[in-house]
Amino acid sequence: MNGADCLMRALADAGVTLCFTNPGTTEIHLVAALEQERRIRTVLGLFEGVCSGAADGFARMTGRPAVNLLHLGPGLANAMANLHNARRARSPVVNLVGDHPVIHRRNDPPLASDIATMAAPVSGWVRESADALALPEDGVAAVRAALGLPGQVATLVIPADCAWGTSQHLQSGIPQPEASPLSESAIAKAVGMLRSGAPTALVLGGKTLLEPGLRAAARIAQRSGAAVLSQTFDARFARGAGLPLVQRLPYFPERARKRLAACSQFILVGTHTPISFFAYPNGELDLLPKGSRVEILADEKQDAARALETLAEALGAGQDMTPPPMLKRPERPTGALTAESAGAAIGALLPEGAVVSDESGTSGEFAYRHTVGAPPHDWLCLTGGSIGQGVPVGTGAALACPQRPVICLQGDGGAMYTLQALWTQAREALNVTTVIFSNRKYQILQVELQRLGFTTPSAALLSTMELSRPDLDWVKLAQGMGVPAARADSAEVFTSELERALAEPGPHLIEALL
Amino acid sequence: MNGADCLMRALADAGVTLCFTNPGTTEIHLVAALEQERRIRTVLGLFEGVCSGAADGFARMTGRPAVNLLHLGPGLANAMANLHNARRARSPVVNLVGDHPVIHRRNDPPLASDIATMAAPVSGWVRESADALALPEDGVAAVRAALGLPGQVATLVIPADCAWGTSQHLQSGIPQPEASPLSESAIAKAVGMLRSGAPTALVLGGKTLLEPGLRAAARIAQRSGAAVLSQTFDARFARGAGLPLVQRLPYFPERARKRLAACSQFILVGTHTPISFFAYPNGELDLLPKGSRVEILADEKQDAARALETLAEALGAGQDMTPPPMLKRPERPTGALTAESAGAAIGALLPEGAVVSDESGTSGEFAYRHTVGAPPHDWLCLTGGSIGQGVPVGTGAALACPQRPVICLQGDGGAMYTLQALWTQAREALNVTTVIFSNRKYQILQVELQRLGFTTPSAALLSTMELSRPDLDWVKLAQGMGVPAARADSAEVFTSELERALAEPGPHLIEALL
Repeated sequence: MNGADCLMRALADAGVTLCFTNPGTTEIHLVAALEQERRIRTVLGLFEGVCSGAADGFARMTGRPAVNLLHLGPGLANAMANLHNARRARSPVVNLVGDHPVIHRRNDPPLASDIATMAAPVSGWVRESADALALPEDGVAAVRAALGLPGQVATLVIPADCAWGTSQHLQSGIPQPEASPLSESAIAKAVGMLRSGAPTALVLGGKTLLEPGLRAAARIAQRSGAAVLSQTFDARFARGAGLPLVQRLPYFPERARKRLAACSQFILVGTHTPISFFAYPNGELDLLPKGSRVEILADEKQDAARALETLAEALGAGQDMTPPPMLKRPERPTGALTAESAGAAIGALLPEGAVVSDESGTSGEFAYRHTVGAPPHDWLCLTGGSIGQGVPVGTGAALACPQRPVICLQGDGGAMYTLQALWTQAREALNVTTVIFSNRKYQILQVELQRLGFTTPSAALLSTMELSRPDLDWVKLAQGMGVPAARADSAEVFTSELERALAEPGPHLIEALL
Repeated sequence: MNGADCLMRALADAGVTLCFTNPGTTEIHLVAALEQERRIRTVLGLFEGVCSGAADGFARMTGRPAVNLLHLGPGLANAMANLHNARRARSPVVNLVGDHPVIHRRNDPPLASDIATMAAPVSGWVRESADALALPEDGVAAVRAALGLPGQVATLVIPADCAWGTSQHLQSGIPQPEASPLSESAIAKAVGMLRSGAPTALVLGGKTLLEPGLRAAARIAQRSGAAVLSQTFDARFARGAGLPLVQRLPYFPERARKRLAACSQFILVGTHTPISFFAYPNGELDLLPKGSRVEILADEKQDAARALETLAEALGAGQDMTPPPMLKRPERPTGALTAESAGAAIGALLPEGAVVSDESGTSGEFAYRHTVGAPPHDWLCLTGGSIGQGVPVGTGAALACPQRPVICLQGDGGAMYTLQALWTQAREALNVTTVIFSNRKYQILQVELQRLGFTTPSAALLSTMELSRPDLDWVKLAQGMGVPAARADSAEVFTSELERALAEPGPHLIEALL
């Protein structure tokens, strides 16, 4: 067997089931090996940013890495923006980057570049295979590295001669993430803070935002009166009817600061200190009240959800959680289509078990608010601020969870970055409904412009933040890639189109004209 | 004035006239400053790969750098694949990358990453501004670095506080590229080789492929009997009726080796030794016959076209060049639409002064051959092998040369990478005709698959190299971005649609169904 065959067999043995790719000549032996290894499904993306975003979505829903098979430096470069988001999501992702044989690099052929350097800013682990014999072990090492808590991007550079050279089968099992032990003193400190009487917040992040962590945090809150907060953007929020509520911090720093002002003690659980997304001239950078006490209950390398359970027990919080109040779902909206009425329609119709991939920018706040009483679902955020994540992440989530409906809430600006993801949805017949909030501008920038003091911007300045002249026609763009699509210009049409899209299998797109 | 205002003024003083951007919050002061500086035109791209490819096209046609204004690491990442191509084209390009203020980086906010490291593999020059006072000088230094022969990508990282902080006006002129002196001994050596009687080839590259270099090389060839060759892919070829012919080396190494076998001496002029694009198992890497003599007449830092003129004079080649034979243009084709008949239509209709941006992969060879007798035009190649260059480069060329018709010959696979460029063409009303060679596959990969010994590939393996199921509808995709479009399924329809597109102003797209 050649290196490529042995690598793919080892990856399958290590639990890899999915490979996203847009291969080239240097990857042909790897693609051929993938087709021999029936345990790994190969999914083609027409742009590598689709692959890397989808691998992120798959990881968020399964906790396991998918593989991106990429074509030298340029293939990696195209994947990088969504790898940046995956890095911020702490998603386990494995990149296999094909390269020229080392001996050909001295010729500096057109496609050559310094791949390892390029990979470093988005990867927690980078290695280059030395030969075909080492390749299977390198692949398993990449899987293991990706799974290292809290999850990271691992990049393996594969010179083509490692793929086509002779290798041998590697015995390997399925690597599991290993957590650092919990800290008894951290738990004792947290108990002390929660019993001190000072107003205290738990700040949750990562896996604590799934059901077990949320329930433990709710029991702690019930016992101690603590607030339960989260960062604005995290990889995955479990939420909906019956699940305890978490207060997500507002995006703008002045609003976040206001929310945080009520507390003087903060216990971090699987996340970092709340910070501002951007810095502003003459603006404060810190969000927490001056003199706050901040302690870490569990960091990202520990099992933070178990830390919450241990803390609940130490507080004598009891096993039972008072069920959270049942919140009403909105009625089907009527009248003008706005971000608010679109959000109400989503709240009225969101099916149980839905996965929402949210890159809706300024338009999505209403959908988030209106779905708080919807049946239980998962909410995936734009983690690294690099737009063009939402539709690829939804695509990967749909591959991870074929039984669950996926809804992408997507601003038009970000949607244009990786619109090729729609084609992959069509090819794989994925059950994804993409809502394009079509306001024909980068609205967040026009808001930030005001906040930065440009209160009477010229038309020319505004036009650099507008997707108009010409308007994009999302119905045609979707149909051009084989995805059925409709346009909605009233709340009624939007609601009925959403209902239809959710009822029919396969991908759909709705352009919500705001 | 703040740093941003002083920077843009200094850049305009340094000859910058065009900025491509997709800005974000960290770039708002820079965008506002651009709108104040009327000498710099700002063009919005809906994806940064459009911006960087367009900047490359602009540089190839003008010899001057355009600026890409990019949003932190992710904006740079999205631009990188076409920056890789620009690096290989030796195009002067300046990237301005907005970043968080240094003080905010310690918070590791979501959009933070190591931008300078990310930039290094695609940049010949990287700097980060230290403060607002340094920013204008840093900008001019970036322009100067970009123009350093043979031309390179220069990346300046701009922490936001450098843009909004107080600065002052910088007096500066327009930097000019400065060539290293020619080598008299290199010229003498070349004279000796050409007089030796051994079969000798001039291998041209870079600026020598424009008219003055071609004419000098033709005079040398006329006098000495030397062959005149070029690499397969170079940034810009001047060609067409009345211009001396250059033999472009074939893409596949065995064919290139055959072509090169006729010579035993090679004189490199502004380029490197011919090399294979890819390496193959058990394949030879070298293209030149064993024992060949290779000498450099002028390297990329010298004025290689002037070296040819000096050499012609030293040989006593005389000032007159025998006019090259007038080659016939093809008739308007009829019958089935194939890569060959499409190429004939392009050959029959190509207007004088056209700029052809060629990323047509396997389909474009015929167009190249059929345009050899067309009126004089420029031919721009995919220089770095990173697909998704063609339509952006054509977009930038159209901005550089508003009086010249631009034709993008584009494979469907590569077109999907940066299809957002069509929207910029529509917004700026650019006179670009994009021909999509729609064979619904990455055909070059299916060819390479055979060459690598996978002679009976499975349907599953082939499907990872196919853009079908569903087919892309390029008419809808173009119309979705405001570009008029038509589909052609016969040579007659293709020819008449091409004729119409060339006659009408503004952008057009033709999907050539092969």
